[in-house]
Amino acid sequence: QTHWTLTLVCEDRPGIVHAISGAVVDAGGNITESQQFSSHDTGTFFMRLQVVSSTGREAFEAALAPVVARYGMEWKLDVVGRPLRTLVLVSTAAHCLNDLLFRQRAGQLPIEIPLVLANHPDLQGLAEFYGVPFEHRAVVGAELKAEFERRILEVVDEHDVELVVLARYMQILSPELCAALEGRAINIHHSFLPGFKGANPYRQAHARGVKLIGATAHFVTSDLDEGPIIEQNVVRVDHTREAADLVAIGQDEESRTLTQAVRWFAEDRVLLDGARTIVFR
Amino acid sequence: QTHWTLTLVCEDRPGIVHAISGAVVDAGGNITESQQFSSHDTGTFFMRLQVVSSTGREAFEAALAPVVARYGMEWKLDVVGRPLRTLVLVSTAAHCLNDLLFRQRAGQLPIEIPLVLANHPDLQGLAEFYGVPFEHRAVVGAELKAEFERRILEVVDEHDVELVVLARYMQILSPELCAALEGRAINIHHSFLPGFKGANPYRQAHARGVKLIGATAHFVTSDLDEGPIIEQNVVRVDHTREAADLVAIGQDEESRTLTQAVRWFAEDRVLLDGARTIVFR
Amino acid sequence: QTHWTLTLVCEDRPGIVHAISGAVVDAGGNITESQQFSSHDTGTFFMRLQVVSSTGREAFEAALAPVVARYGMEWKLDVVGRPLRTLVLVSTAAHCLNDLLFRQRAGQLPIEIPLVLANHPDLQGLAEFYGVPFEHRAVVGAELKAEFERRILEVVDEHDVELVVLARYMQILSPELCAALEGRAINIHHSFLPGFKGANPYRQAHARGVKLIGATAHFVTSDLDEGPIIEQNVVRVDHTREAADLVAIGQDEESRTLTQAVRWFAEDRVLLDGARTIVFR
Amino acid sequence: QTHWTLTLVCEDRPGIVHAISGAVVDAGGNITESQQFSSHDTGTFFMRLQVVSSTGREAFEAALAPVVARYGMEWKLDVVGRPLRTLVLVSTAAHCLNDLLFRQRAGQLPIEIPLVLANHPDLQGLAEFYGVPFEHRAVVGAELKAEFERRILEVVDEHDVELVVLARYMQILSPELCAALEGRAINIHHSFLPGFKGANPYRQAHARGVKLIGATAHFVTSDLDEGPIIEQNVVRVDHTREAADLVAIGQDEESRTLTQAVRWFAEDRVLLDGARTIVFR
Repeated sequence: QTHWTLTLVCEDRPGIVHAISGAVVDAGGNITESQQFSSHDTGTFFMRLQVVSSTGREAFEAALAPVVARYGMEWKLDVVGRPLRTLVLVSTAAHCLNDLLFRQRAGQLPIEIPLVLANHPDLQGLAEFYGVPFEHRAVVGAELKAEFERRILEVVDEHDVELVVLARYMQILSPELCAALEGRAINIHHSFLPGFKGANPYRQAHARGVKLIGATAHFVTSDLDEGPIIEQNVVRVDHTREAADLVAIGQDEESRTLTQAVRWFAEDRVLLDGARTIVFR
Repeated sequence: QTHWTLTLVCEDRPGIVHAISGAVVDAGGNITESQQFSSHDTGTFFMRLQVVSSTGREAFEAALAPVVARYGMEWKLDVVGRPLRTLVLVSTAAHCLNDLLFRQRAGQLPIEIPLVLANHPDLQGLAEFYGVPFEHRAVVGAELKAEFERRILEVVDEHDVELVVLARYMQILSPELCAALEGRAINIHHSFLPGFKGANPYRQAHARGVKLIGATAHFVTSDLDEGPIIEQNVVRVDHTREAADLVAIGQDEESRTLTQAVRWFAEDRVLLDGARTIVFR
Repeated sequence: QTHWTLTLVCEDRPGIVHAISGAVVDAGGNITESQQFSSHDTGTFFMRLQVVSSTGREAFEAALAPVVARYGMEWKLDVVGRPLRTLVLVSTAAHCLNDLLFRQRAGQLPIEIPLVLANHPDLQGLAEFYGVPFEHRAVVGAELKAEFERRILEVVDEHDVELVVLARYMQILSPELCAALEGRAINIHHSFLPGFKGANPYRQAHARGVKLIGATAHFVTSDLDEGPIIEQNVVRVDHTREAADLVAIGQDEESRTLTQAVRWFAEDRVLLDGARTIVFR
Repeated sequence: QTHWTLTLVCEDRPGIVHAISGAVVDAGGNITESQQFSSHDTGTFFMRLQVVSSTGREAFEAALAPVVARYGMEWKLDVVGRPLRTLVLVSTAAHCLNDLLFRQRAGQLPIEIPLVLANHPDLQGLAEFYGVPFEHRAVVGAELKAEFERRILEVVDEHDVELVVLARYMQILSPELCAALEGRAINIHHSFLPGFKGANPYRQAHARGVKLIGATAHFVTSDLDEGPIIEQNVVRVDHTREAADLVAIGQDEESRTLTQAVRWFAEDRVLLDGARTIVFR
């Protein structure tokens, strides 16, 4: 018996659930988890199923074929728990990478990491401790930056990478790279977006005197810090905290928020509805 | 067109979703919201649908009849937004009643209140301001208590009451009354259950030095403070707070927690799975 | 015996605590609560004391006089629990006013309200239920708006008002009025500032797909939604929530956040440090 | 210039603040942070100061001597940021140790760890990665258990250990050891105490159907899970979570709660007031 994940996106119309559940019955499957959403904003229907079935992939796909054709569905059939091939980009901050690697080893994050690619050498030891390949390439000047980005795409291609995670990677990606990775690159921003975009958000937060600071995991788009939001968390602070304190306090929120977003993405729980995300938690 | 709520509970078996969605299609309905859950603990399947349909109730029920019969389903078909007939019991504390009445008038809580029944006269003015009938009967001694409980059942019967809310009603209900109201009486307990059962939970919380205090909305059972939990919230406190401070601080959590539980129940989002609740938020 | 609140602000220098505590001893007082903060940003020292003393105000002030003179302190001596004279401005939304009035009557908010001034008549009944004078003046066009603002200042003058609360008052105050009320007018903004300034923040929040919505209580300044922040709260939402849902969900945060800010201000716990607030919670 | 921490505990009487601040002035110090609390429960006065001074320890202590004698104070003078000598006990679960070690290396946790002592070998690699000595001793049967406890006391003695942290150490300490380590051993319990004491709290939480799960850091006492609470956190869960899910979800709260408690203790912010803690955050 296999435990499948099935995600479906199509124009919203009557009868979809009946058609899909019929195909599942035809494939000898039993639905163990089901979530759906009809977006008023875009008229789109979203569905995520988990199905237990003794059928193989081919038979399952054959049962689905007429339904997905009739409704013009985008769809994905995957096996629950299959590790997602994930490239992680880092600079010098260790906390997000540490959390991803720790959770992955603990069996709480279904990803595999063919490579950690870094523009600084600092995190090599951490990656090695977890047995993950680490590659350092300096990014100084336009040429090295372009080379780094070519290397990203090369790794994506070579390892058939499904997700690129910017785990406090401190370089802005070029619009071309953003376009190439659209919908499969996740960044962690160390503020509660849309507040405090851009550099030094904790310094901005201190200057503004906010009473809560936060972190936002979002898809990378060429419009900096404006990509669809996947997850956000906040933590209370008070007037006694300097900007440097906020940096330390915010790290827990950053790492938990990023890890959560990566987990949901790896479990096929995150779907795009225009500039917004559907998250089937 | 009518917007329906349909809840279903039965033994978990394959094919349920397909069968139900087929009945919905037969009734000319379109599913706008769907949630389901299969309990590993009890082997029970739970489903809540919202369906838009131009069919009348009779035709809808006719379409459902063979499916609910085949699967031995408990089911309920209702109209979205229909106010639930709700009896509210109070003593002297105003905050929970105030929140229920305010939310109800603001159109944010689909209930109608045929009566507020009280063992103290204090809240008469508040009920009257919101145009809700108020009845005061002293509860001193066993005889008056029994009479009060008879009056509860009388009102439940007379107004076909669907939910009884104990909004800081400070009397313990008799086992007989608990049994009679099983699954349709909700209490707010002013602690984070299962901690601090019984009387004076804030004094207990102060003595124990907890760093968070909370409130719990739960179904009433004869096993005091042990009924299935519907909703819980907490708020941070520190060592400077006396027991009296905790009382004031906890009131926000009590009223928001109770109102939330009542709203979910009124929207048919709360189902019982043994000693636990399924809440389709 | 009187329970005093004493707040002090001056340039930060050594020896202040010793000097002040000496004055308290001289006045026969015992410090029951003490908080202080030295701002690195502005080099300012802030202190809030609660003192129990059998001395009258004159003697206490006499004991303080040489110290406050030596350090050039701004200071305020008040009696714990004295109700703050508070003018409340409203439009049509009831939830913030309802919470202020309910908490005030419950003895949990040390304010007295000589008047609720409104640009719509809707909340008259609510104010009357709580026995608070209510005055309605339409604000249509520049002239009526100017007249309304003159009336605000008149009431402030007449009743020696110490705080003006904008409890979802939906008019923008003129720069002149903002200046006149500087440091003693509090507004509730229905977003987590600095995100979603201006109109329709919940619609903006929905469009941006944020996963948490919030409310911000801040001092009113002529720079709209940029005044010093006093308190903020957030609540989790998900993709299923329309903008209208967010409005209802956000109301709890708005009213609790505003009431909290007003309570702290009334208890002399909020001090200004440039564009930031010190909150001695 | 040295940055000092000074904590003081004595019977509450008038004039303490003035006396202490006078001693600080005499020692040429400037108070940069000050917190105090008078416990109504026990009549005890608690104070924590941070003082910048160019005086050496001897001169500072000399200035304090008459005051602490007069008031019969328990007191501690320490240097801000001095790493606390901390012995960590573990079994097999890695998340708490991982967080302590990561935070310590990141400079966000002022402790030094002479030894990680374990009753299972699993976490050796993790300790070694962070360069911390690791010692494994099996605890099977009463004799080995007694030997393990003797070894704890030996290490405490040998390294002058100031704090023992039970980072998911799954053995119950003997009453004798609890007594020997009183006030300097911190445990993390994986529930929101006082709910779900004892073994398998997540299974209990699942069975009870709670809507929030939590973690509690508390001082170790011979009365299991009843020691004074230092910090607590909760996280929301719903009916879909099995006990095993709760274990994974709860780990973030466990590690952040324990690390927070250790940080506050290491910064001399945690004082005991009978069965409750004063936490000067």
